[in-house]
Amino acid sequence: MKPVSEIIRKKREGQELLPDELEFLVKGFADGSIPDYQISAWLMASFLCGMSTSETLTLTTLMRNSGKTMNWRKMSSNFENEKFADKHSTGGVGDKVSLILAPLAVCFGMKVPMMSGRGLGHTGGTVDKLESIPGFTMYPTEAMMLKNLDEIGTIMMAQSNDLCPADKKLYSLRDVTATIESVPLITASIVSKKWAEGIDAIVYDVKCGSAAFMSDVGDAKRLSESLVKVSSQAGMASSAMITRMEEPLGSMIGNAMEVEESLWILSDEYPSELHRKICEPLKELCCDLTVEMAMLSGLQSDREKAKAEALKFISEKKALEVFSRMAVAQGAAKNFRDALPKAEFIMDITAEKDGTLAAIDSRSLGVIGLDIGVGRKRAEDPVDPKVGFEVLSQVGQKISKGDVLCRIHARDKAQAESIYAGVQQSFQMILPTTSVSTIGKQHLFIDRIRKENLE
Amino acid sequence: MKPVSEIIRKKREGQELLPDELEFLVKGFADGSIPDYQISAWLMASFLCGMSTSETLTLTTLMRNSGKTMNWRKMSSNFENEKFADKHSTGGVGDKVSLILAPLAVCFGMKVPMMSGRGLGHTGGTVDKLESIPGFTMYPTEAMMLKNLDEIGTIMMAQSNDLCPADKKLYSLRDVTATIESVPLITASIVSKKWAEGIDAIVYDVKCGSAAFMSDVGDAKRLSESLVKVSSQAGMASSAMITRMEEPLGSMIGNAMEVEESLWILSDEYPSELHRKICEPLKELCCDLTVEMAMLSGLQSDREKAKAEALKFISEKKALEVFSRMAVAQGAAKNFRDALPKAEFIMDITAEKDGTLAAIDSRSLGVIGLDIGVGRKRAEDPVDPKVGFEVLSQVGQKISKGDVLCRIHARDKAQAESIYAGVQQSFQMILPTTSVSTIGKQHLFIDRIRKENLE
Repeated sequence: MKPVSEIIRKKREGQELLPDELEFLVKGFADGSIPDYQISAWLMASFLCGMSTSETLTLTTLMRNSGKTMNWRKMSSNFENEKFADKHSTGGVGDKVSLILAPLAVCFGMKVPMMSGRGLGHTGGTVDKLESIPGFTMYPTEAMMLKNLDEIGTIMMAQSNDLCPADKKLYSLRDVTATIESVPLITASIVSKKWAEGIDAIVYDVKCGSAAFMSDVGDAKRLSESLVKVSSQAGMASSAMITRMEEPLGSMIGNAMEVEESLWILSDEYPSELHRKICEPLKELCCDLTVEMAMLSGLQSDREKAKAEALKFISEKKALEVFSRMAVAQGAAKNFRDALPKAEFIMDITAEKDGTLAAIDSRSLGVIGLDIGVGRKRAEDPVDPKVGFEVLSQVGQKISKGDVLCRIHARDKAQAESIYAGVQQSFQMILPTTSVSTIGKQHLFIDRIRKENLE
Repeated sequence: MKPVSEIIRKKREGQELLPDELEFLVKGFADGSIPDYQISAWLMASFLCGMSTSETLTLTTLMRNSGKTMNWRKMSSNFENEKFADKHSTGGVGDKVSLILAPLAVCFGMKVPMMSGRGLGHTGGTVDKLESIPGFTMYPTEAMMLKNLDEIGTIMMAQSNDLCPADKKLYSLRDVTATIESVPLITASIVSKKWAEGIDAIVYDVKCGSAAFMSDVGDAKRLSESLVKVSSQAGMASSAMITRMEEPLGSMIGNAMEVEESLWILSDEYPSELHRKICEPLKELCCDLTVEMAMLSGLQSDREKAKAEALKFISEKKALEVFSRMAVAQGAAKNFRDALPKAEFIMDITAEKDGTLAAIDSRSLGVIGLDIGVGRKRAEDPVDPKVGFEVLSQVGQKISKGDVLCRIHARDKAQAESIYAGVQQSFQMILPTTSVSTIGKQHLFIDRIRKENLE
């Protein structure tokens, strides 16, 4: 093999690296024989000069093969004819889609071995949300995985350290060398983990907007195309939906609060008509993503019919039943809903003047949430499952002075008061005389990227 | 200060870094508080996104200030009205210009505290050449420096570890991360060292061609402009000459052999008319560069007259006398010329067919030389001072089968035979019927970059 510096030079000059060159780099990085300072130079060269689809696929393969890979059909003969599917979201504020989508997908007949992450920065994580249910374990044994997938249809798990260790190590280096926001590097990181999960179909929910990882639709489209291309080449049926991430997704932001909200949607019963209205786009998104999974898995062929089916699974409480069985099978008590931790102190945020609600700054709410334990600033920080924000207003809505915009769920009064001003400022009002024709766009769906549409 | 990753991100996005951001990086790198993997990501981002002149000057200043700096006028009152000048070459094959230029510059009245490097790869280094003189030390004490500069006018030294330690550390990292060939990074590395030398004027000999660091004239021009700009802003009078590096410079390649050849030129006495003819472009170059130094130092104002003066210093053996005094003052015996080590075995390389000599591949000769100790592959390798190549033919010359093209000076017959074929192939012949109008360009001078011509 040529010296590492020659491989870096090749990438630096915009050339495509050969599979054995990439293998040499990734293996050398994983086993420590190539120092971090050479890998970071290669990362920056790849960031700035790009990577071909072929290189991205090779990197994805190398990262997948750096650790354990699941092969469900080999692990149990019961799975011989089953369709394994999953969804991946690039992360948003109030994004509890996984909790609703997994049971819904099971209703369609899919097996959903879902691996999730923890929250970091202003966006939340499914692991933290489900762990707010007392007794719920996100670290099932292999035996539990197989049993629950077989008997219930889904298992919710924290990302295992055994999967894609090279990706984990590379991500840490990217984090400190300003090489995170690269389409091919993100693609390889995401797809390698989903591929290692042993699934047949994957839908990507690529969030786009001020509270998302990507705010530019063009960037989101490029990432979507890359994810779908590489996933397809890796043998998974896949598509991507680009969805808006400006306002919070639904009403609730906070770990236990988002579990509770998921149960509203799964049971089709809301605390009020306002809550139902605010949750509507979230419910739509959950159904649309699940339908996409069912189409990719070949279990449904008509999108309209499948959507009606999904809504029926909800109204007939079938999806709710799957969620309950899943929770109990993963360690929760039967009455887990009553056992969800609740905030000791609730404080209403009211409008200071008349006007129209122009925007809800989800990113700001996410960042403020870090101060009270809704999320974490660093990976080693704890979260407080019971605290959060309950959004009680919608963009485009006419507001009178004194109307409740949002409710802080806090540990105590002092905590609530410490963030009151920041939360209030996250609700951006305009005067009643201003035209609202350009605001209030509530449709989440922006674009869909399917393999057939590529090239 | 913002996190290092944010500074890298800023550079990655093509923005100019502020002086305090660069200072934070360079100091953190020097004291080890910022890890190499972040510095290499910044290096690659700088390589690919470029650096402004202001950033380059800041980096140059930081590297200069990382170690000792010379201030001759402070060190001795004798130097109050003296002009300190130097030349820097980007490196070539057979480039013994420093050995001839330093004594010539002294004849013009300049003080020349010349710091040089060792050979590495296919290009040679002045330190190795002068060390082939028995007894010659390239590591003078400070007292010796002051005495020799005062009494003789020049001191030849190896690059001290005390000067620009941050540059030394950064260069090592660039070497293994494919970030060497960057105009601003090269500029900062070269200028910081010359600036630390405490000189008033500097001429850059930027080599361009197949055997040089840069083969493209555009690249050489960009480097020249950057060197002159940053040197001027650092307060040094400076200019750059872009000169051809295709054939070897002169007849001799090899450490002691190049000292001997320098003495031919300084004494204006050659072993043969052929040697004189082959050495002519080298002699011209030495005179032109010295004249440039004299102009920059304000000691000469008419280039033509100064050139005539330089030739007179040679024909009257004044420059030779300076060289001899310098050698003796630095430890050589009076009869040092007779004491130069000589190869035990000489083998002629002859033409295998009639034709015209189309090219002499200096890079190839330099690389072959590594195998017998003319140069070194790694910094820690030793060199063999007595071996080398004596070129006895010129590009464009008509050659008959059996003519001597070159002479190998070797340790023994086996060594000479081991490289015979490679050396022979470095002399590229074309058939006698081919037109030679496009070959045989012997003028070394390509372009001159002076401060007045910039912007």
